[in-house]
Amino acid sequence: MNLIIFSEKDVIANTASTVRIQLGGRQLDHLLSVHKAEPNSILRVGQLNGKLGQGRVVSINEQAAMLDVTLHQAPPTPLPLTLVLALPRPKMMRRIINSISMLGVKDLYLIHSYRVDKSYWSTPFLQPEALHEQLLLGLEQSIDTQLPNIHLRKRFKPFVEDELPLLCSNKRAMVAHPYNAQPCPPSSLEESILAIGPEGGFIPYEIDKLQEAGMQTIEIGQRILRVETAVTALLSRLFPVI
Amino acid sequence: MNLIIFSEKDVIANTASTVRIQLGGRQLDHLLSVHKAEPNSILRVGQLNGKLGQGRVVSINEQAAMLDVTLHQAPPTPLPLTLVLALPRPKMMRRIINSISMLGVKDLYLIHSYRVDKSYWSTPFLQPEALHEQLLLGLEQSIDTQLPNIHLRKRFKPFVEDELPLLCSNKRAMVAHPYNAQPCPPSSLEESILAIGPEGGFIPYEIDKLQEAGMQTIEIGQRILRVETAVTALLSRLFPVI
Repeated sequence: MNLIIFSEKDVIANTASTVRIQLGGRQLDHLLSVHKAEPNSILRVGQLNGKLGQGRVVSINEQAAMLDVTLHQAPPTPLPLTLVLALPRPKMMRRIINSISMLGVKDLYLIHSYRVDKSYWSTPFLQPEALHEQLLLGLEQSIDTQLPNIHLRKRFKPFVEDELPLLCSNKRAMVAHPYNAQPCPPSSLEESILAIGPEGGFIPYEIDKLQEAGMQTIEIGQRILRVETAVTALLSRLFPVI
Repeated sequence: MNLIIFSEKDVIANTASTVRIQLGGRQLDHLLSVHKAEPNSILRVGQLNGKLGQGRVVSINEQAAMLDVTLHQAPPTPLPLTLVLALPRPKMMRRIINSISMLGVKDLYLIHSYRVDKSYWSTPFLQPEALHEQLLLGLEQSIDTQLPNIHLRKRFKPFVEDELPLLCSNKRAMVAHPYNAQPCPPSSLEESILAIGPEGGFIPYEIDKLQEAGMQTIEIGQRILRVETAVTALLSRLFPVI
């Protein structure tokens, strides 16, 4: 937790220059056990979907911490990217959602694909609260406040036919696929959309449909990477900052 | 498991053109449950520290599988990199070792650093068999056969003073450190050495020592990444293929 993120519900008073917040739960535990926070300790604080700043501890005990917060700094620039990801295996889901949030992706489509087991759609890790938790952990790690948007698309064909062409228009549109692909394009801050398949990859029919929607196949090397690692490796290659 | 890797102990006969191997345990389970292998099934096989090729199933049952293997293809090119990593927390260790092997790193120094808890050195995950297992899983994922070398250095100062200057000579030598750093250099296949600190980073004294040994501080952006993600992001930025 490199950043304490508060939201509206934590605010107990508001003046022109400072916000007074009250924290409990996981954040209080962290303040006590890791920061050994005491009155007047200064901590890095951010407002969910708002600015970064610092908080001064007013009081702290086993029940609650009260902080006076001033906010003055914009959060890091989001990646100019829409990420389209075949729904990962439940076992990998939490880490991947967390990573994507940490890396500064703000728009994520989780889609169905032939090699995605239908049962994956009923995992509890896809519940809004479970997703929110992992997104928040990613933001806390990378000192960001802007919550990503996650869109669930349980049917491949309607998504690629009806939505994807519009999402691809005026963007650098790519699907990571190691066969008959172009080398990864040079790093740029151009608006982009990138699709990444499931373990085992997209099937040829799906690649055809993604290409019809406007995506070009790209590859970064001959190694077959785990999905989470592939996401990081591709984003690091495609964008000059992470 | 995208590759079945065998070693000398699995070889039961050898002719000029083929090697007959016998497999059990985890590999047999995978052949039966994932590949649904039967006699004459063809599978991708590699020899540990040797070539890649294919294997034809001669016989398979609950006790053992016998395959005739022909080897004809070189494994993927290693990254021209020596990676120096502050010993990760035990909880992260296995995944990080696995990732590093998957990414094609062949020389890894795990070193002590001020922010590495001394107790981490006694984790069972550092036992040779535990390391070997994760290295092998990484190779199986990325279809490689060349086992990385891991060097453990429990004392920071003797390592950076006595060994590191020589390791840095004639190489692109870098330490990832987000303060007062150069931007990450362009992607290249130049021989390189890269140091990555623990959670919380190297302390200023350590950065000074690493710079004295010949390393230049570099950064890839303002976000603070988890170690595993930072490794992938940096390697993907520094080398044209992964």
